[in-house]
Amino acid sequence: MPRQVDHTQRRRQIAHAVWTVMATRGLDAVSLREVAAEAGVSMGRVQHYFPSKDAMILHACEAMAEAAYERAVGTAAPDGDGRDVQVASAGATPRQMIRTVLLTGIPHDDAHRAGASVWFAFLTKAAVWPELADVVRRQLDDGQAFLTSILRAEHAAGSLRRDVDPASEAVALLALADGLVLRVMVGSLIPQAATDAVDHRIDELFAGMR
Amino acid sequence: MPRQVDHTQRRRQIAHAVWTVMATRGLDAVSLREVAAEAGVSMGRVQHYFPSKDAMILHACEAMAEAAYERAVGTAAPDGDGRDVQVASAGATPRQMIRTVLLTGIPHDDAHRAGASVWFAFLTKAAVWPELADVVRRQLDDGQAFLTSILRAEHAAGSLRRDVDPASEAVALLALADGLVLRVMVGSLIPQAATDAVDHRIDELFAGMR
Repeated sequence: MPRQVDHTQRRRQIAHAVWTVMATRGLDAVSLREVAAEAGVSMGRVQHYFPSKDAMILHACEAMAEAAYERAVGTAAPDGDGRDVQVASAGATPRQMIRTVLLTGIPHDDAHRAGASVWFAFLTKAAVWPELADVVRRQLDDGQAFLTSILRAEHAAGSLRRDVDPASEAVALLALADGLVLRVMVGSLIPQAATDAVDHRIDELFAGMR
Repeated sequence: MPRQVDHTQRRRQIAHAVWTVMATRGLDAVSLREVAAEAGVSMGRVQHYFPSKDAMILHACEAMAEAAYERAVGTAAPDGDGRDVQVASAGATPRQMIRTVLLTGIPHDDAHRAGASVWFAFLTKAAVWPELADVVRRQLDDGQAFLTSILRAEHAAGSLRRDVDPASEAVALLALADGLVLRVMVGSLIPQAATDAVDHRIDELFAGMR
């Protein structure tokens, strides 16, 4: 296996172990020792890839953000200035893309609920850890830029209600989705109700169009 | 001081100490010893009020939920079946009440950001702690019932757009508010933008009415 691939895979394996420790025992239980045991590697091996516990946690957060982003947008991604959205994923319409981005985080089983709780643990810690806040903010900003670019294109094409402001609406839609995920995560809402809420909002934005 | 008042005040003092420990060192740093030190009382005193660490944390969560609810609704509260909303707080209109409920959690300074992070730490932990999930769900359900009752009254009075479903809209509005709080908490959104997003959504619900 090429060295670079191995390096990337090892770091990913360690990130997965961090998530597992967080899901079962919380962020504060994460240590180089615990993560090494969870990953089935030596502490020295973990330290070879990460100089400190903090660096390891920051990477685990970044890896989760990237995985979520890739899952949400598939192979579609805005280019640098966000104007040209390449929707290459199985011919999805922009409206379907918007729906996918908003529904991707809603947990439908215990495993996904645990995954959501790991992400919210990162968000919670970000309130008191500036470097982690940077990582989290980048993920939120990327998602927002991506959704804004789709909404902007739809708005220009006349598919969205005229009074919709793409940038503001992107924030509101993503905030709605996060709040719904939280409610499903703690069992206050069933996944279908969260899905319905997203679909209802999308219907409103496209109301009377097409 | 009457005995009952003293008991309630002591428990509230301990709840405050739990929040402070959580805000600075995280939920997993909470112990009877740490909380006693933070509250400036003996461990025996804490144990007199709470039989276990878990009972203390559950109470701290409940106390935060109650404080948030009281701050949000002021002296207004729905009666048992949610039909008769008493809006007694300084003559606020129903629309102002809705706005207050939705804006109350948005943090405008570091202290409130820390408070928000404590609440999200409870939510995160609730994903893997059923008893805590019960406490959290009650708070979410109470807020939802309260907002639903106001929206239902406004809908019946013809002040809301006809196509608005009060119960679903209450969930969507509260989810939006939570997602906005998260974004302000991690510094991805300024408080004013969160306020604008809420106001925009309220304007849409009342669009063309009155």
